[in-house]
Amino acid sequence: MAENKFNYCIENIRMSPIVMISEEVRIKGVEFKEKTGKSIIPFQRGEIDFATPEYIRNAAKKAIDGGFTKYPKSGGEKRFKEAVINKLKRYNKVEGLDEDNVVATYGGQEALELTFQLFHGKKVAGFAPAWSCVLENFVPYADVDFIEVPLEKDFSVDFDRLEEVLKEVALFYLNTPQNPTGKLFSKDEVTKIAQLCLKHDVFLLSDEAYERIVFDGKSHFSPLSLEYDNIISAFTLSKTYSMTGWRLGYLVTRNKEIARLMRLGNYTQTAGVTTFLQYAAAEALDNAEEDEKAVGAMVAEFSKRRDALYEGFKQIPGINFDKPDGAFYLFPNFSEHIPAGLTGVERNTYIYKKLLEEGVAAVYGSCFGSHFVDNVRFSFSGVTIEQINEGVERMKKIFK
Amino acid sequence: MAENKFNYCIENIRMSPIVMISEEVRIKGVEFKEKTGKSIIPFQRGEIDFATPEYIRNAAKKAIDGGFTKYPKSGGEKRFKEAVINKLKRYNKVEGLDEDNVVATYGGQEALELTFQLFHGKKVAGFAPAWSCVLENFVPYADVDFIEVPLEKDFSVDFDRLEEVLKEVALFYLNTPQNPTGKLFSKDEVTKIAQLCLKHDVFLLSDEAYERIVFDGKSHFSPLSLEYDNIISAFTLSKTYSMTGWRLGYLVTRNKEIARLMRLGNYTQTAGVTTFLQYAAAEALDNAEEDEKAVGAMVAEFSKRRDALYEGFKQIPGINFDKPDGAFYLFPNFSEHIPAGLTGVERNTYIYKKLLEEGVAAVYGSCFGSHFVDNVRFSFSGVTIEQINEGVERMKKIFK
Repeated sequence: MAENKFNYCIENIRMSPIVMISEEVRIKGVEFKEKTGKSIIPFQRGEIDFATPEYIRNAAKKAIDGGFTKYPKSGGEKRFKEAVINKLKRYNKVEGLDEDNVVATYGGQEALELTFQLFHGKKVAGFAPAWSCVLENFVPYADVDFIEVPLEKDFSVDFDRLEEVLKEVALFYLNTPQNPTGKLFSKDEVTKIAQLCLKHDVFLLSDEAYERIVFDGKSHFSPLSLEYDNIISAFTLSKTYSMTGWRLGYLVTRNKEIARLMRLGNYTQTAGVTTFLQYAAAEALDNAEEDEKAVGAMVAEFSKRRDALYEGFKQIPGINFDKPDGAFYLFPNFSEHIPAGLTGVERNTYIYKKLLEEGVAAVYGSCFGSHFVDNVRFSFSGVTIEQINEGVERMKKIFK
Repeated sequence: MAENKFNYCIENIRMSPIVMISEEVRIKGVEFKEKTGKSIIPFQRGEIDFATPEYIRNAAKKAIDGGFTKYPKSGGEKRFKEAVINKLKRYNKVEGLDEDNVVATYGGQEALELTFQLFHGKKVAGFAPAWSCVLENFVPYADVDFIEVPLEKDFSVDFDRLEEVLKEVALFYLNTPQNPTGKLFSKDEVTKIAQLCLKHDVFLLSDEAYERIVFDGKSHFSPLSLEYDNIISAFTLSKTYSMTGWRLGYLVTRNKEIARLMRLGNYTQTAGVTTFLQYAAAEALDNAEEDEKAVGAMVAEFSKRRDALYEGFKQIPGINFDKPDGAFYLFPNFSEHIPAGLTGVERNTYIYKKLLEEGVAAVYGSCFGSHFVDNVRFSFSGVTIEQINEGVERMKKIFK
């Protein structure tokens, strides 16, 4: 057997198709502008068009000048971990944790990547559709065998199907609220999933990146509050505080052996998270008053955008789906607008191309796994109400 | 065969013995203070007691308010990469690179870790003594078989021995100036090492963390300037600008395939380096005037400390070594002060314990591999001249 020149796990990492879509949108955008004088509506973006709240920027600047520029403590600064524990109590109703349950990470990304690495080479499952980064990055890098458990067409869970798969795997990946569907898993669903994992000796990796972006008074339920030992939760400040470029997150688990291993992994990879940024993160999480103000304003705006886009889709024949309760995505199914007989890449990109031609950018469903390839993801994280309305008008002309 | 519950590569990562030493020094420090009213002299510290220069702190604050808080570009911001390329030209005399040769990383740490991962499971070699983090963290995490190539007693290179080992390995790790010896490898040595690597189809991982901490007008020679395709250099801002807690570094290689894989690895692990910090790093590297001022002052102080400590050791019988040209460590051999017949851990920690009892903290040689176990590392990165002199006085009482 020929030996690989390099580690095949790195060689197998794929560039996100969303990055390729962004590049195509950039190029097509120039052409579209020349032809029509108008801009493409960027529903493909996952970036948030809010600034990081001032109180957090000020905390970072203060920490820089305060001399918090020395090596970080292994696993995270005391101040940061305390803020995380307080936040988990206040917002997630999670009790009984101490500093050894928390690991500071570079975004939710590093928390997820380290957890996948912990299960290197094993069988892992998650619901489909699934966040593209899981499929393109974590799965190949950790060399796991990933089983997609498809949600129903209305994004509900087939628990029998789930249980069959849980008999075979070491880890289950759950993302709630979910990218790309916007589905907020209910307390009952999360509890049942966690219990099934426990029953079959499966660890549950709970990706709670969008926990604060929930609408209509609904609330996110973290499986951490169940007090099971098999739950590993990944959190990030990226979406909550519009801090995508700060790269701040944390991993929380009641299983201290796992937390210890994740500290070692984090130290080995990066020697820890930038010290002064942990102080800014602590302020972000701890200052309940400023937090409510900033997050409240953002979620109110996202809620309006969701409503505008959702109402827009109601005017398009053949598109029917329930309004999602979280995150900043809609994931409608376009089956009725795809010509019969189309298959493969041609089918998968048919709607995407048609939309892009008319100045509407979105992400095709096959970026999120092998089910739901007739769906398309629309993000409203970086578009105004005016852009949404204009996008809907353009779509109404395509799909009559 | 029983299946591992978790990834054994993470389970095999060891906590740095230097962390354990720090903890012991902290505890003993309290006792020592109670007994003598004095403090332990912290020669064990790798931390730098300078503040990050103001021009860099200002650049970070400006970038935070400038809105550079969105997702970083894959592999690094254009502004950062340009600054790296300029710095490589200006300081390292390295020409002919473009942005695709550079990857932004979380400190030198992530550049080294990713490179070790690229050679996962293969044979790797490096000189002994070697930085403890290589042995305790990178080697187990990347599951490489690491061969120590011992330097001679005077830290010179046995090239025949090196060449024999290079016939067997895929990667060679070089650290110049070197931790723990302070050895600055000469241009001739670096060139010969790189050529031997090239001859035997071995990649050279060049850890240049201490490149700017060189004394007496000597200068660091980067193998990158050789224009070979087999060289991967890891740089960090940590030591140069007293930015250990900022976690900023970069990987540079003429091999664009490797750079591409490292970008994918970096993206998968962390989604890239904090955007606004890359702008601060660019300013650190680009502002030649402020750089010279800040680094010049720091190196002048380190030079004085090195001289004071070196002159101190001259007064201790049985300690003989050449004054090193770089980094901030001395690594004297204490063989003559170790009782005959002592072996194993008892021998390895004999001098360390004796020193600590008398209020001198340092790191024993076995932290740096299996050769040089009678040596002890003294860092002068975090001690004043007064502390050095006091430490020398204490040692003179022990070793008569």
